[in-house]
Amino acid sequence: MNGAALDPRLAASSHPLAEWRLSSLRLVDDARWPWLLLVPRVDGARELVDLPSTEQLLLLDEINRCSRALLALFTPDKLNVGALGNVVPQLHVHVVARRRDDPGWPGPIWGHGRPQPYSVEALAERLDVLRAALDPA
Amino acid sequence: MNGAALDPRLAASSHPLAEWRLSSLRLVDDARWPWLLLVPRVDGARELVDLPSTEQLLLLDEINRCSRALLALFTPDKLNVGALGNVVPQLHVHVVARRRDDPGWPGPIWGHGRPQPYSVEALAERLDVLRAALDPA
Repeated sequence: MNGAALDPRLAASSHPLAEWRLSSLRLVDDARWPWLLLVPRVDGARELVDLPSTEQLLLLDEINRCSRALLALFTPDKLNVGALGNVVPQLHVHVVARRRDDPGWPGPIWGHGRPQPYSVEALAERLDVLRAALDPA
Repeated sequence: MNGAALDPRLAASSHPLAEWRLSSLRLVDDARWPWLLLVPRVDGARELVDLPSTEQLLLLDEINRCSRALLALFTPDKLNVGALGNVVPQLHVHVVARRRDDPGWPGPIWGHGRPQPYSVEALAERLDVLRAALDPA
């Protein structure tokens, strides 16, 4: 399950955070929302239901870890968790912290307006804070 | 875990399909997409990560069952699976069959245009077909 290359569109729109047991964990480069991406390193996987049971359980655990970190760091009004893949079919799961005053609330983030890339400083700080909250592996 | 009343907005916009071990399974009344809703009967649950581990595993199994049925019945180009809850915070999971020629592709369905309610005949047929594919419980 280590053979899956990251889709270049996912690679270009996000930054690496950690390599977990199943997934590559990435931060989407959009400062409007704290937005994590889990990309299981499973060659050819497109749907959650494609994953064998063991990998599904690992993914569930990784979603939980992302969720707990976002809740602790950002005290959001709601988490949004989704596996869509209409644009990039490689299986990936979004875990996003939403606030009532964020752009687009209460709508979904996907396809909403234009991404707002982090500044170099804001990106470095956010990656540090997330890595600290998400450890230990 | 049997005390949770269904949010009236979820009740009003969807039709009952089955009562599974964890969740009430419903069909959203929008003929634009085959759109299932799993609503765990867990009082006060808002986030996936709120669920105890046993209930998370049941929910994962129920998501898989929905996914397999939609794949078998509608041969969609992609499934969309999501737990958002920005409008209705009661925990609920969407499992939706998407096609490249559906309205809104490749965007998300949530908040897209106006729902297109099923006709009485189309609703009855779809519920029948889904119940047959989703059985046995």
